[in-house]
Amino acid sequence: MEIDGTPYRTIWVEEPGRTVGIIDQTKLPHRFETVTLASLDDAAHAIKAMLVRGAPLIGATAAYGMALALNEDPSDDGMARAHDRLYATRPTAVNLRWALDQMRALLDNRAPEERAALAWERAAEICDEDVEISKAIGRHGLALIEAIAAEKPAGEAVNILTHCNAGWLATVDWGTATAPIYMAYEKGIPVHVWVDETRPRNQGASLTAWELGKHGVAHTLIADNVGGHLMQHGLVDLCIVGTDRTTARGDVCNKIGTYLKALAAKDNGVPFYVALPSTTIDWTVEDGVRDIPIEQRGPEELTRIAGRTADGSVVEVDIAPEGVTARNDAFDVTPARLVTGLVTERGVAEANADSLKALFEKG
Amino acid sequence: MEIDGTPYRTIWVEEPGRTVGIIDQTKLPHRFETVTLASLDDAAHAIKAMLVRGAPLIGATAAYGMALALNEDPSDDGMARAHDRLYATRPTAVNLRWALDQMRALLDNRAPEERAALAWERAAEICDEDVEISKAIGRHGLALIEAIAAEKPAGEAVNILTHCNAGWLATVDWGTATAPIYMAYEKGIPVHVWVDETRPRNQGASLTAWELGKHGVAHTLIADNVGGHLMQHGLVDLCIVGTDRTTARGDVCNKIGTYLKALAAKDNGVPFYVALPSTTIDWTVEDGVRDIPIEQRGPEELTRIAGRTADGSVVEVDIAPEGVTARNDAFDVTPARLVTGLVTERGVAEANADSLKALFEKG
Repeated sequence: MEIDGTPYRTIWVEEPGRTVGIIDQTKLPHRFETVTLASLDDAAHAIKAMLVRGAPLIGATAAYGMALALNEDPSDDGMARAHDRLYATRPTAVNLRWALDQMRALLDNRAPEERAALAWERAAEICDEDVEISKAIGRHGLALIEAIAAEKPAGEAVNILTHCNAGWLATVDWGTATAPIYMAYEKGIPVHVWVDETRPRNQGASLTAWELGKHGVAHTLIADNVGGHLMQHGLVDLCIVGTDRTTARGDVCNKIGTYLKALAAKDNGVPFYVALPSTTIDWTVEDGVRDIPIEQRGPEELTRIAGRTADGSVVEVDIAPEGVTARNDAFDVTPARLVTGLVTERGVAEANADSLKALFEKG
Repeated sequence: MEIDGTPYRTIWVEEPGRTVGIIDQTKLPHRFETVTLASLDDAAHAIKAMLVRGAPLIGATAAYGMALALNEDPSDDGMARAHDRLYATRPTAVNLRWALDQMRALLDNRAPEERAALAWERAAEICDEDVEISKAIGRHGLALIEAIAAEKPAGEAVNILTHCNAGWLATVDWGTATAPIYMAYEKGIPVHVWVDETRPRNQGASLTAWELGKHGVAHTLIADNVGGHLMQHGLVDLCIVGTDRTTARGDVCNKIGTYLKALAAKDNGVPFYVALPSTTIDWTVEDGVRDIPIEQRGPEELTRIAGRTADGSVVEVDIAPEGVTARNDAFDVTPARLVTGLVTERGVAEANADSLKALFEKG
């Protein structure tokens, strides 16, 4: 997508076979800074310190991290050490493991002197494949937006609510929940996005509002409390969110607060769609509320926040009473009964076991 | 209630017939500072600049503002000017008008030299009456908490979720939604409160968490996104919130986000109660979603926040992308169908026209 008119991906080759560029997402929305990754150390740090985040982008960065490592030491030992080092940065990230497995499968039986070149090539492919998945999700979701636009007076914007950041910043390009929105925008369909702030980490305000604004898509930032009220007053045509993990029957584990928006959508007859690459489907789990453990994160994410002061410097401030006890559940589970459809790279499935299975048994 | 062991009201006479003390609530939770009101100017500023807030406390402050004004000028003209001056501070506050009308009804036909003394006396009565209303709400709500406690293993806390601040800081003492909680605490019933942060103005984090902490009531601060997830996992026994305006059929207009919590409560079988003095019932409105206009406030409430820096100073910082468009609806309406009961000073009514009417026709 574009940043002030310049096309970007979230990760790109700077010097072929030598360095990779990324956006330092920890600085957003206050500063736009790119960072050069020139070593395994750089790549591991970028993932661990969350300069890059979002499952697909973590996977892509790990793949390039392996390529950078093999420039330094292409031996079996070196490759094993790089694998362990990268895997340890975010051990619960499914795509991280997947990307590293891809690299190992390709490289394990190759001669050390061949490995680096093959790794750079495969890392680029992993990025391109991710873009293709996002674009396929985008095309299937676009049809939903087009159908709503067709029912509206010409020129009236389709109002889409999203939560957290399932945007291009979380992937290599296009995003998942945002891919249909960017495609509608590119096609000239008027769209307007309600962006949930997404407390406590404010990914909506810091990332989604930023990326939509830089690309030029109309949007309005709202507190997480507002969406239900907007739906009561007919101001939301559809919701599209991402997911971290989807169960075999279509329960959706996504950023905390997603469930509340899905309830409001149901109560007001607003379609509620979840966009996902099929890699997020966990075929081994049915009942998400019962069986998906929810990550508890530090209370300081709720009680402390970074912002710009009047003189333009960025500082962290404490916003809650000193010594307060806080609880920070990172995700919640939206039961399938509240989900209108699952928008995947294969097409749109209903949120039930049969429909999901049918879509992915096709071949 | 108590602040670190010292009993306080939100407004008190400092020097009888001369000065009044208040807590500067704009400084909370970062600083606890009291302010002396010694003139009409002081009182008008305290209301307008929101050093005091919450309908009952605004009314009480206006009553004392009239007494302070009459110390300065007890003539008919002086009284009329004071009335207009105070009324203009927050013209939409129902209790402000009510308190000023009370004072005028008492004083209009009295000789100027009698007025100040009578005004000080009536202002004190208005405060005491408000405390009695809160205590009556507290007693009726306490019965609900006791019933839940009786079903739990001995010693296990009753978990109560609240949104925004309908606490003692919004009234003269005890609060509305918090009155049952403080009464349960005083009675030794173990209670624990989930405090919604309440974006964008953070009244939950800044006021409710602060007042519960200072009094010693167990509580945990959570993002507004979390309550539904807690209810899914059986961690909320009941919800109690306040209301700014209640319709004749029991629709509840309260701080933005209340509706989302009511939906989650319904979806999980958690009782959802609203505590209110009967003065907030608007008998002329039935359908709150359709007929209650919702105040739109400035976007900077969402994009800017005050906090403490590492060196202990309090600064404001911008937390969203520069130039972002934001929308800030201050309230939403929870339909009566989602409300388990309305806890008033007369008792608990079901959220429907017949039950409410029956309660207030008794006498």
